[in-house]
Amino acid sequence: MPDEALEDTAAAVVNYNDSGMSLLEMSHRSQPIVDLMEETTGLVRHLLAVPDNYQIIWLQGGASTQFSMIPMNLLSENEIADYTDTGSWAAKAIKEAQAYGSVHVSCSTKSSIYNHINKDLQQSSKAIYLHITSNNTIYGTQWKTFPDTLNPEGYLVVDMSSDILSRPLDFNSIGLIYAGAQKNMGPAGVTMVIIRDDILGKLDRHIPTMLDYRTHIDKGSAFNTPPVSAIFVVNRTLRWLNDLGGVQVIEKKNMTKADKLYAEIERNLLFKSPISEEDQSPMNVPFVFAENGDEKEFLDFCAERGLLTLKGHRSVGGFRASIYNAMPEAGVDALIAAMQEYESQRS
Amino acid sequence: MPDEALEDTAAAVVNYNDSGMSLLEMSHRSQPIVDLMEETTGLVRHLLAVPDNYQIIWLQGGASTQFSMIPMNLLSENEIADYTDTGSWAAKAIKEAQAYGSVHVSCSTKSSIYNHINKDLQQSSKAIYLHITSNNTIYGTQWKTFPDTLNPEGYLVVDMSSDILSRPLDFNSIGLIYAGAQKNMGPAGVTMVIIRDDILGKLDRHIPTMLDYRTHIDKGSAFNTPPVSAIFVVNRTLRWLNDLGGVQVIEKKNMTKADKLYAEIERNLLFKSPISEEDQSPMNVPFVFAENGDEKEFLDFCAERGLLTLKGHRSVGGFRASIYNAMPEAGVDALIAAMQEYESQRS
Repeated sequence: MPDEALEDTAAAVVNYNDSGMSLLEMSHRSQPIVDLMEETTGLVRHLLAVPDNYQIIWLQGGASTQFSMIPMNLLSENEIADYTDTGSWAAKAIKEAQAYGSVHVSCSTKSSIYNHINKDLQQSSKAIYLHITSNNTIYGTQWKTFPDTLNPEGYLVVDMSSDILSRPLDFNSIGLIYAGAQKNMGPAGVTMVIIRDDILGKLDRHIPTMLDYRTHIDKGSAFNTPPVSAIFVVNRTLRWLNDLGGVQVIEKKNMTKADKLYAEIERNLLFKSPISEEDQSPMNVPFVFAENGDEKEFLDFCAERGLLTLKGHRSVGGFRASIYNAMPEAGVDALIAAMQEYESQRS
Repeated sequence: MPDEALEDTAAAVVNYNDSGMSLLEMSHRSQPIVDLMEETTGLVRHLLAVPDNYQIIWLQGGASTQFSMIPMNLLSENEIADYTDTGSWAAKAIKEAQAYGSVHVSCSTKSSIYNHINKDLQQSSKAIYLHITSNNTIYGTQWKTFPDTLNPEGYLVVDMSSDILSRPLDFNSIGLIYAGAQKNMGPAGVTMVIIRDDILGKLDRHIPTMLDYRTHIDKGSAFNTPPVSAIFVVNRTLRWLNDLGGVQVIEKKNMTKADKLYAEIERNLLFKSPISEEDQSPMNVPFVFAENGDEKEFLDFCAERGLLTLKGHRSVGGFRASIYNAMPEAGVDALIAAMQEYESQRS
């Protein structure tokens, strides 16, 4: 996370805007917090150029709760939704949706351990929506461009938890976007949802008040007490991104970091990428030993150089560098230097 | 909130336990955060003397989400649950439960603007559970002792959002307790649920994974990313309470504060309590002018003395002092002094 956001948060925890009260004690009905939430939503609208016919809300429960809320709000029992199986999170979304309507899996790369995205989709002509996971954190793949829906009336539903605000977005064909904050936006504990106005309110199903998007749209994300402190951190992260120049600027920075690292993985004789080149994620960069190697030894070698959390997810092994928006280029340079140093020690 | 908890949180936001990382960046799978969550749960178990056959979990979505989760997990379509209508939150719980089974309202004081608790309950002999709101924040009433269930197989479900950890608890007859953290435990963004082992898993209904208590019990509240920073603040608040001597000690302090304030309301010729004496809450103390008075003038008079957020809830008007665990006795003394000064100016 950006240092500025952390410093502002620490100060606000002790004394919010010279109010003498902690951010953690402020009522969500108080003017400073109402202002904070409005500014935060406004920053998202500005940074992502969200059109006026889309609502932006702040929820709790993570993307995992969205896996149920989406079909509960959008898919009736006798309707079809297309889902793409591009990783563990995508698979969880599929599992939850099956309780609400017909779920049609349009592609799956599970049998090849999700090492690429199968973009040759088998879509249903009547699918209400097509669900994609724009970036797959565990496997390190990304939809570089979003697919079109086969149904001209259909729309995309996109889990952007791990690449939101890393690149500009084309809202054409998008019905709903959701993202847990904890990768590119802030801390765990708040989830952003962006919804096109016209897709709600079409079902007969009973929806619990707290799981109905309309509740939170109607009440400006303050139907009940929102996670104010998490939203504060998001606010400061968005301010940092805005000051930097926005998503066009961060996209270039992200590509510079990713290109460097993938080039080193390609060049270094010890390592290789397990992922198809055209789908490689600029956010999560997995790599493995090209031949045999001692994973623990390399992780220790990195840890001695202050390079932490490089262990690959337990389901795939190897290594993974997560280089989200806030990771400075110097962090990537340090990893590349360690990879080169390790290579020369080995040869 | 306790100053110690706020100071610890500000420090952890910058550098968690000398790790060089911010609390807000730590993985919930990392050992320090696993340890943090275990310690926090252990502190609750210790402070409230929670028996071994009860599970303690940390969720998101506030008490409002529990209003649906409880009947979804515990009440089948052909079963009855008793609910007590003692305030706005109780009424919201009733509304949500009606989607899942037969909801029988055992008492209501709505017609007298919830100014007392009707303890003469009309219970169903077959009710699966009896739901009560232990403390009603808006109206300032509290169940001083919890009622017994008529059904000997039944159990209590208690919304303790606004008086959790303010007094000892007798778990006999309790099936489930829930509490949003933001009154006595920490910041908004985390909700604690304590559940007796044997009441779950009895229904056929489909329950979304994130709304099934068993998901969070099985995964130690880390099925998905928990709200780590909110749990940290809860941890430090619990440590503060434990260092103070626990709930027996805080209960005495709470009674001292409340007795003083209610005595002043009784004595002061300008003010009166709208609440039946035997139900008066030690957490939320509403009061109104005994005869006519200028509410804005008194609120301004208090604000000049640093006494803020004394406006009564918009649904009842008047004044309300919320004197939760962390409010020092000096805060109550300052309010009493202001009330006396205002009285002498008026006479």
